[in-house]
Amino acid sequence: MIGQDMIDRFIALLGPKGVVTDPDEIAPWVSDWRGRYHGAAAAILAPASTQEVAATVALAAELGVALVPQGGNTSMVGGATPPADGSALILSLRRMNHIRSLSRQDNLAVCEAGVILSVLHDAAEEQGRRFPLSLGAKGSATIGGLVSTNAGGTQVLRHGTMRALVEGIEAVLPDGSIFDGLDALKKDNRGYDIKQLLIGAEGTLGVVTAAALRLAPAIAARAVGWVGVASPADALALLRLTETLLGDSVEGFEVIADETLGFVLGHIPGTRSPIETRTPWHVLIEVDHADLSEPGPSERLEAALADAFERGIAVDAALAANEAQADAFWRIRESLSESEKAQGPALQYDISVPVAKMPAFMIDAAAAAEARFPGTTASSFGHLGDGNVHFHVRAPKGTGDGPAWIATQGQAINGFVHDAVVAAGGSISAEHGIGQMKRAELGRLASPARIGALRAIKAAFDPKGLFNPGKLIPLPGEG
Amino acid sequence: MIGQDMIDRFIALLGPKGVVTDPDEIAPWVSDWRGRYHGAAAAILAPASTQEVAATVALAAELGVALVPQGGNTSMVGGATPPADGSALILSLRRMNHIRSLSRQDNLAVCEAGVILSVLHDAAEEQGRRFPLSLGAKGSATIGGLVSTNAGGTQVLRHGTMRALVEGIEAVLPDGSIFDGLDALKKDNRGYDIKQLLIGAEGTLGVVTAAALRLAPAIAARAVGWVGVASPADALALLRLTETLLGDSVEGFEVIADETLGFVLGHIPGTRSPIETRTPWHVLIEVDHADLSEPGPSERLEAALADAFERGIAVDAALAANEAQADAFWRIRESLSESEKAQGPALQYDISVPVAKMPAFMIDAAAAAEARFPGTTASSFGHLGDGNVHFHVRAPKGTGDGPAWIATQGQAINGFVHDAVVAAGGSISAEHGIGQMKRAELGRLASPARIGALRAIKAAFDPKGLFNPGKLIPLPGEG
Repeated sequence: MIGQDMIDRFIALLGPKGVVTDPDEIAPWVSDWRGRYHGAAAAILAPASTQEVAATVALAAELGVALVPQGGNTSMVGGATPPADGSALILSLRRMNHIRSLSRQDNLAVCEAGVILSVLHDAAEEQGRRFPLSLGAKGSATIGGLVSTNAGGTQVLRHGTMRALVEGIEAVLPDGSIFDGLDALKKDNRGYDIKQLLIGAEGTLGVVTAAALRLAPAIAARAVGWVGVASPADALALLRLTETLLGDSVEGFEVIADETLGFVLGHIPGTRSPIETRTPWHVLIEVDHADLSEPGPSERLEAALADAFERGIAVDAALAANEAQADAFWRIRESLSESEKAQGPALQYDISVPVAKMPAFMIDAAAAAEARFPGTTASSFGHLGDGNVHFHVRAPKGTGDGPAWIATQGQAINGFVHDAVVAAGGSISAEHGIGQMKRAELGRLASPARIGALRAIKAAFDPKGLFNPGKLIPLPGEG
Repeated sequence: MIGQDMIDRFIALLGPKGVVTDPDEIAPWVSDWRGRYHGAAAAILAPASTQEVAATVALAAELGVALVPQGGNTSMVGGATPPADGSALILSLRRMNHIRSLSRQDNLAVCEAGVILSVLHDAAEEQGRRFPLSLGAKGSATIGGLVSTNAGGTQVLRHGTMRALVEGIEAVLPDGSIFDGLDALKKDNRGYDIKQLLIGAEGTLGVVTAAALRLAPAIAARAVGWVGVASPADALALLRLTETLLGDSVEGFEVIADETLGFVLGHIPGTRSPIETRTPWHVLIEVDHADLSEPGPSERLEAALADAFERGIAVDAALAANEAQADAFWRIRESLSESEKAQGPALQYDISVPVAKMPAFMIDAAAAAEARFPGTTASSFGHLGDGNVHFHVRAPKGTGDGPAWIATQGQAINGFVHDAVVAAGGSISAEHGIGQMKRAELGRLASPARIGALRAIKAAFDPKGLFNPGKLIPLPGEG
């Protein structure tokens, strides 16, 4: 147990501003935002500089106190919730919220871990640049958390996940040493890539204190289109065609089942289908240009869609005539989760398979789930070009008690969906990470070589197991 | 010492074709191609499948026999040369030379470790695709070696190093387990990125047996230009301008000092300067399009250069009028090493610094080296856009005995150049890796956090130290 004597040592180190002990102030940070995981912590440690983080980590190591690094507390998998037994303290990075530099010339921003994503977006925009990664939680998610979870979003097709956008990293390792890898080197072959190892490590190998992030030119012109297609296979054919014709300028490519579109039209006021024809599947596509050269994105997208009609890939299509219409198209995509929630209880899976296998997976896995769990309906939507969809299994119509349905059916459905993903050579976590939610399933499904490697690396960096205990690494009984 | 009884165990496992013991057949593989490092090995083990590699590694672990993974033996840093005391066997991947699949639709090739780079180039071309990484040793370098050294080349500006091109990896870890990560997932957040950890690990964490590699569309049209500029700073301004105007289509951007160009013109028959004006610095630029849309690369590059003249960035320029002239421009770049060799003895450094700092580094570090070592001349050339140049310090004019000069001056000059690189926040190995050549300097210059992390990872994967001993990881006395 962590006693007051230990807390006092941290207060002596960080000052009263650096240690939060008021239970009311702590309360919002010991549960996840979805309310699924509930932990306890006697204090939140909030160092204000890299040196203070290093000193905090060193003191925690000396005292044998476990730490749970935390940014905006927006994890989807309970990754930032401390253990329920109070055996850890929260290490909050929110006071480290400075953008240390932002260079238009170098297309580079150096941000401390606590910088909120939308703050970086605004700062980049002021310089005629943009940071090309965004997600729903951008108003609270922090750079440190985005790095530590290798966050994705809707722009991955062109710009990649955080892995592709982080050019340098500063972190405090579990022994209190500072890993200073902030210099953004495009080529560096001095051995193992520690930077990539810390990206997506969910705070289990130390704590990220700052990152150098690559910026992209601001968007000068965009075209947004909505295309009705017959199948996910045709959607993939459309993606390949537009990539061939339009190259890297295809920035968004989202696939939506007609049934799912129906939920949006039914539940979200003011929405309407962009196309007249009822087609089984839909594609939302965005083409962006960083300059105003001719032909612009609208002309080029229009020409590509004409080609798609000729080839019989597209059934119907609409091009947004203006920014308001473009926003309306995207609003449909962004309302999918909300409208599905309104539709009734569902289990949601964030999964990936190789892109080429995705069209068949979307059809076959849904049919298999519906057959195996009578009454349920299953479908998926999302980032086809990344091989990543959100696969949902909805409770039978009329299911009143969602939590009870999940309690009785959840584990069986989880296992069924994950088995299908593994059979297709896929990943049970495409975007959200493992945290505590998927830890046991990772242990059940990953190969001995992968689990062995994860455990060996964890033990090498954090032999006492003080960094984000219970997250990511399967426990001894798990795999 | 490795006795015949142990060799017999491997012969029993792999058959006579799988174990080379004839000293004449072994001889070419126990020294590096530059003739700097000389080792010894009682046998070359040459398994023909992943399963055979796993069995070989398991047997070696059982016997306590160290293994030196080897592909084409083209290391620049002695990375594939076994220890001189005969304490290791060579683990050759050359019999694993199948391209398992090559999909035009998926832009993906799955290659075994022993596939030679130029073989992959040809196979991709037959499908209207290309593998966008090339280097001088392409006729002997293998995929396994390229992955394990995170190889670069002249196309990194647009396509990245191997790190960006490897989508999946299969490897045998030191305990004999097979890490099967060949499924090319664009998004996968199941914890630490084992794939990125194995890329650039120089065979010290296990042995790569296959890789899934991303292909690019074939080039439909290209433009190659030569631009005379006043300084590296102007060269960087030209790069930024062309990136803004031409986007991702800038595939090559090489910077060369006029003095270095002079060596080529003086030593390589049939070469001539592409431009009339003598300018202190030169830029070779290539713009590639994957389609035949208008305006083509020549028109676009011409327009960009007109802009550069208006801004005073370019002094003189020539556009290759045809493919023969384009090849002639590139031949100058490709002859730099040979002509420098003809010029006299020199010490050569493969270094990187942040791109923005490179123009000043190229001028200042050369001047500082010449001042500190009177009589020497120093200059650099290479991939400015990657922040990576080849920095050369040439022996004083008239130095007859190159090896003697290197023996007396080498260590001091090495230290001086590396210190300058570190002061600029750079890397002492941009492309070539650490191997045995730069191991002690890595130990001297890397931060305790970095060295600690390297050693911890090595010990976690390979606790007995059986994989490529003496490479990459600083020895106990070194840092």
